[in-house]
Amino acid sequence: MAHVQKKTGRTGRRPGKTRTPEAILRSAREAFASNGYDGTSIRQIATGAGVDPALVHHHFGTKEELFLKAIEAPIQPEAMMDDIFAADVEAVPERVVRTFLGVCEGPVSGPALLGLLRGAMAHQWQAALLRELFYTQIARRLVHRLGEAVDPEEVPFRASLVSSQLFGLAMSRYALRLQPLADAPRERVIAIVAPTIRRYVLEELGTGEDDAP
Amino acid sequence: MAHVQKKTGRTGRRPGKTRTPEAILRSAREAFASNGYDGTSIRQIATGAGVDPALVHHHFGTKEELFLKAIEAPIQPEAMMDDIFAADVEAVPERVVRTFLGVCEGPVSGPALLGLLRGAMAHQWQAALLRELFYTQIARRLVHRLGEAVDPEEVPFRASLVSSQLFGLAMSRYALRLQPLADAPRERVIAIVAPTIRRYVLEELGTGEDDAP
Repeated sequence: MAHVQKKTGRTGRRPGKTRTPEAILRSAREAFASNGYDGTSIRQIATGAGVDPALVHHHFGTKEELFLKAIEAPIQPEAMMDDIFAADVEAVPERVVRTFLGVCEGPVSGPALLGLLRGAMAHQWQAALLRELFYTQIARRLVHRLGEAVDPEEVPFRASLVSSQLFGLAMSRYALRLQPLADAPRERVIAIVAPTIRRYVLEELGTGEDDAP
Repeated sequence: MAHVQKKTGRTGRRPGKTRTPEAILRSAREAFASNGYDGTSIRQIATGAGVDPALVHHHFGTKEELFLKAIEAPIQPEAMMDDIFAADVEAVPERVVRTFLGVCEGPVSGPALLGLLRGAMAHQWQAALLRELFYTQIARRLVHRLGEAVDPEEVPFRASLVSSQLFGLAMSRYALRLQPLADAPRERVIAIVAPTIRRYVLEELGTGEDDAP
């Protein structure tokens, strides 16, 4: 909105020094979407933005911090995991839903999350960024934390199943506002959805006919 | 795309007779989004399009047929229900997932469904149309067909829970392409998701603290 309020409306002016963070974010988004999180270096992003790598660190800190800024992630994955795993692993499913609803219903994080999902539905490059968030910031951490309770090799599949329920919940309850789900009390939604998350996280997954002996 | 190929590129030309179906669809979308399916009449839509009601019926048949055209619904709700309820009610959860994946993976219906979800995430009026599809074409039919197996009053809530899982599945597997879910065999996905749908459709729903005596 800032440019709307500018007094000098001259167009085509080259970005000055104050635009450096913007240029870095733009370069970071392109790099992360094209090469993935692991395949992207701060040096690459700096080159893309035409600045020194030190300036990238100065403005954004670590690669992980820059990534979360670049996709405007409404979560701090490490802190979120700390919340979810603060109690016994048996409590994880219920805490996952509670934490997720907390993000959805936050005055800042809620619109940000819906914006992220909306953008990822509309643009391939935003979908690529959301996938990177999922794999590198969430699934990878889950393998680390959940790998003692279930087969670590199954964790990414379990995580994508959990996402299928949580993203759909965000979409139906907050974006489409399907009733009565949209206005159901938060505790009721947690009580109903937590067993689904429990199955996806901790219980045996059905296998379908393809694994018949 | 048709207008790109036109030889006479004059702009601002008033719509001729051939544009009547377009005008009717536009008027229908506005009316359904503003007043809901039940609150909209063919007469209203005709007035909005500046045509005779008989012409609306001539081009689009019944109000229901016009509604499904107007929102570009990739499903025929009545036929879909016939498929889902063709066997015993115990088979309904598995048939729901199978039918939904069939729509998602159809070469025409798949992109149409994703387009519908995408549009509803991006535009309030498209969300309103999708809600109308849900309430009048799906939830209402479900009450009729499922009301003997479970409390009819609970059916709309059960339907919105089912949607939360199915929409999220469409989003994660087909739009975001989260792995390994995106490439998991269809039968495995059905085996894993059907028990979730079973809980939402047929089993006792958790209630949360709000119904403590």
